[in-house]
Amino acid sequence: NNYFKIAVLPGDGIGPEIISESIKILDVIAEAFQYKFHFDYGLIGAEAIFKTGDPLPEETLKICKESDAVLFGAIGDPVFDNNPDSKIRPEQGLLRLRKELGLFANIRPLKTYASLIEKSPLKREIIEGADIQIFRELVSGIYFGEKFTDPEGAYAYDICRYSREDILPIAHMAFQEAQKRNKKLTLIDKANVLDTSRLWRKICQEIASEYPDVQLDYMFVDNAAMQLILNPKQFDVILTENMFGDIISDEASVIGGSIGLLPSASVGENNALFEPIHGSYPQAKGKGIANPIASILSVAMMLDHLGLQSAANKLRQSVEYAIENKYVTIDLNTKQYYSTSEVGSFIADHI
Amino acid sequence: NNYFKIAVLPGDGIGPEIISESIKILDVIAEAFQYKFHFDYGLIGAEAIFKTGDPLPEETLKICKESDAVLFGAIGDPVFDNNPDSKIRPEQGLLRLRKELGLFANIRPLKTYASLIEKSPLKREIIEGADIQIFRELVSGIYFGEKFTDPEGAYAYDICRYSREDILPIAHMAFQEAQKRNKKLTLIDKANVLDTSRLWRKICQEIASEYPDVQLDYMFVDNAAMQLILNPKQFDVILTENMFGDIISDEASVIGGSIGLLPSASVGENNALFEPIHGSYPQAKGKGIANPIASILSVAMMLDHLGLQSAANKLRQSVEYAIENKYVTIDLNTKQYYSTSEVGSFIADHI
Ligand SMILES: CC(C)[C@H](C(=O)O)[C@@H](O)C(=O)O
Ligand SMILES: CC(C)[C@H](C(=O)O)[C@@H](O)C(=O)O
Repeated sequence: NNYFKIAVLPGDGIGPEIISESIKILDVIAEAFQYKFHFDYGLIGAEAIFKTGDPLPEETLKICKESDAVLFGAIGDPVFDNNPDSKIRPEQGLLRLRKELGLFANIRPLKTYASLIEKSPLKREIIEGADIQIFRELVSGIYFGEKFTDPEGAYAYDICRYSREDILPIAHMAFQEAQKRNKKLTLIDKANVLDTSRLWRKICQEIASEYPDVQLDYMFVDNAAMQLILNPKQFDVILTENMFGDIISDEASVIGGSIGLLPSASVGENNALFEPIHGSYPQAKGKGIANPIASILSVAMMLDHLGLQSAANKLRQSVEYAIENKYVTIDLNTKQYYSTSEVGSFIADHI
Repeated sequence: NNYFKIAVLPGDGIGPEIISESIKILDVIAEAFQYKFHFDYGLIGAEAIFKTGDPLPEETLKICKESDAVLFGAIGDPVFDNNPDSKIRPEQGLLRLRKELGLFANIRPLKTYASLIEKSPLKREIIEGADIQIFRELVSGIYFGEKFTDPEGAYAYDICRYSREDILPIAHMAFQEAQKRNKKLTLIDKANVLDTSRLWRKICQEIASEYPDVQLDYMFVDNAAMQLILNPKQFDVILTENMFGDIISDEASVIGGSIGLLPSASVGENNALFEPIHGSYPQAKGKGIANPIASILSVAMMLDHLGLQSAANKLRQSVEYAIENKYVTIDLNTKQYYSTSEVGSFIADHI
């Protein structure tokens, strides 16, 4: 099979700019490797609210469900953030999409690039050689539990709920990944306080015997937030619930030197979505300064997922070539830098 | 008034060792400044479970309620952590104590010591001059909301609930502190997902007009976890809910170079408790290697609270003198180091 249907959701802020570069890359790859990518564009987020009133229009959902993979840009607009009363928000589009597509595992690989080590706020000896894979549960927990705000504004609540079925698939996935890597899995939780965390611990303990070669550790989330900075090299594969994963994985992005480099894959039984971990970065919108690499590396994860490993590897090599040759955006080099589209073209040309 | 009743709860792990040093300090201060401290010792945590079956015996609670201040060591024991089924846990003692005493605000000051800057995993230019005060809500949220685990282990939930009354007092406190400092307050939340976060934002927006000289900012917790490492100097006063505060404040401890230096105060209407932010560090128990400074600086916060500012200042100077002269424990200097009690005595002698 060399024909693939890709749903493309540029979204808000810098989303459209970085997605253009990813499409540029895919066009080159299609030609070089004789694949055919069919792109279906869909609206999502603030963009979709402004045009249709709905952060996830039915048409967009349909395109995604019928796709082999979803390429996602970014979501979010400050107009909504500062209004606690607004009932419709861009993020609902992404959250509903994750839920509808059953994308239960968000996978974020983290590593350092030799030529960018100096960019990190952390010292070289702390981060050099760090290589972590984070598995964040993505369709349950406090994100999707019942929510309520008293109409008078006297109180509000959010329920964090996990069932055995929510936890098992991603736990198995993380154990399996640990088997392929350094055989160390760390479950990050708050089992000294939360019932849901204790359920996570129990289930991981139960299935650990199926993976006798994997060493399973537990770490409280407060300690983990500290250990990730003090000694990131102690981690191999990290498994955690939705909210903790959101915090921990953004925090861990500092290890690599720039959040503008970090891709992620969100996978489920039948669908998969690929997006940079950075947000919509509204201040940079339209300025041509956004770093397209996180999105381009998300394309590499997508190619892996579609079984196109050699294209994925070639793409990763091209990205590394651009980074090593300092052909990068301003976030990575304030002295000599290139625009979003120049960096995209440089990488495309190198494929 | 120069007579004070101090409830002393050494707790678990290294708790008793560091608390001994704090008592040593208080004895010296009593003599130097002509105060009288009456110490009432109480059991709490794993220690209390082993001896009485209850992580917070009634006797301990009584001592604390009748005290002018509570001096707390540490809590937690790995025996309980790895057993998701155990119904009684050391942490319940501390959590119940916070609730019973109404200690709604946990205050954690963070700053860097010139002579310790090199100890931080972060680069000098990132942290030099950072000075942050964190206000973490301590008696509500997901810590204290209803919890449930299905007897069959099929699912579990934890409810995060906040009312207007839970948020108002600590929000005012944080605004007032910002007025005394650099007039910048950052509310850390996840208002793009959680109803409770939107309530926090709404209430802070409402009362902001009473503090026109304070600049109120909002930051999503995932971004904040990143920004704290990328650029800690952007923060002045941070306000956040219980769970996010737990994570963020432990993470922020890396700025100062060692978690062994960081004190905290937990205050309510009628009571106050002072504890290091580090935990019970069971691996170090009884070895005489624990850093007593976080507990000693908690004593300084306690003295402030009791209105004994000159003693507090003198104590802080003595601590700084010890640090500048490298009279420290192994966590701060692996080449030349002193024991827990040597460091305590050095500081006491200098008062
Ligand atoms: C935009 C937001 C709802 C989202 C999340 O919290 O999951 C984002 O931070 C992420 O991590 O993908
Ligand atoms: C021991 C634990 C329950 C506690 C908490 O999570 O509040 C600790 O981590 C703290 O921050 O004081």
